[in-house]
Amino acid sequence: MKSRLRIATSLLVLLASAGAILEQANQKDVDAVIAADEAWLKVYATGDVAKSVAFCDEQASMLAPNAPIATGKTALTNAISADVSRPDFKIEWHPDRAGVARSGDLGYTVGTTQSSFKDASGKTIQDKGKYLTIWKKQADGSWKVLFDAFSTDLPPA
Amino acid sequence: MKSRLRIATSLLVLLASAGAILEQANQKDVDAVIAADEAWLKVYATGDVAKSVAFCDEQASMLAPNAPIATGKTALTNAISADVSRPDFKIEWHPDRAGVARSGDLGYTVGTTQSSFKDASGKTIQDKGKYLTIWKKQADGSWKVLFDAFSTDLPPA
Repeated sequence: MKSRLRIATSLLVLLASAGAILEQANQKDVDAVIAADEAWLKVYATGDVAKSVAFCDEQASMLAPNAPIATGKTALTNAISADVSRPDFKIEWHPDRAGVARSGDLGYTVGTTQSSFKDASGKTIQDKGKYLTIWKKQADGSWKVLFDAFSTDLPPA
Repeated sequence: MKSRLRIATSLLVLLASAGAILEQANQKDVDAVIAADEAWLKVYATGDVAKSVAFCDEQASMLAPNAPIATGKTALTNAISADVSRPDFKIEWHPDRAGVARSGDLGYTVGTTQSSFKDASGKTIQDKGKYLTIWKKQADGSWKVLFDAFSTDLPPA
């Protein structure tokens, strides 16, 4: 009986350890998608279209307001280019929630955005909004954007 | 040597079987999020707010245009109620892409929407748009909405 108890105790300890290891692994993945989100902003905010597109999976789609879904490198290049090439374009965003599946292959970041640009008359237009990004872990372990959806919080102009 | 070869062959067959089983399990999960997406539409299209909110996780957020992120039952109830209570409101959507993490706890559906309603003057307003929904598997095995983001494809009015 004693040895059975010992085996049962050992199994419980093993299971608890396995649980703790999985939890740590998940937290590492969550930290990694947050880091990818922040790294993407740094590149996007400089207006570098090619580097911004390089953060996206080959099959990535952008769901931007006032346009159909844009899928793949060419469509993403056009969409991001149209966004960042506006005069005096500035953008910031911040991930408020993030999560990754237990298997570590799919994750998300969700947060708020602030951006501004100058319109044709030279007037600065300010925007506040939010976004939802789905991240896919690549074969090399890096995280890339699979879907990115965003919209303004402000009432229609 | 023969028995080593037999063991190696058995291991390969075992691995291939395990791979096939995992793939089938993933396809079952993908089918389940597509079914959840379609079931949600059926309820949403009838304008039943309580049943529509019941498709959402306790921590669910809706990212609707012209409004900040709405999180939790009360905020979702208000957001969905404002949407479906418009005169003669009709909506259809269709998932075009869907996926689930290998661990089967997190998935997504992405697709297009068509909706219409009557404005204050009685004129029918038609909209075309797209959506991105993240689904979280619940403790009971059902899939619920964790995030839902959508926007119009049409140019600003």
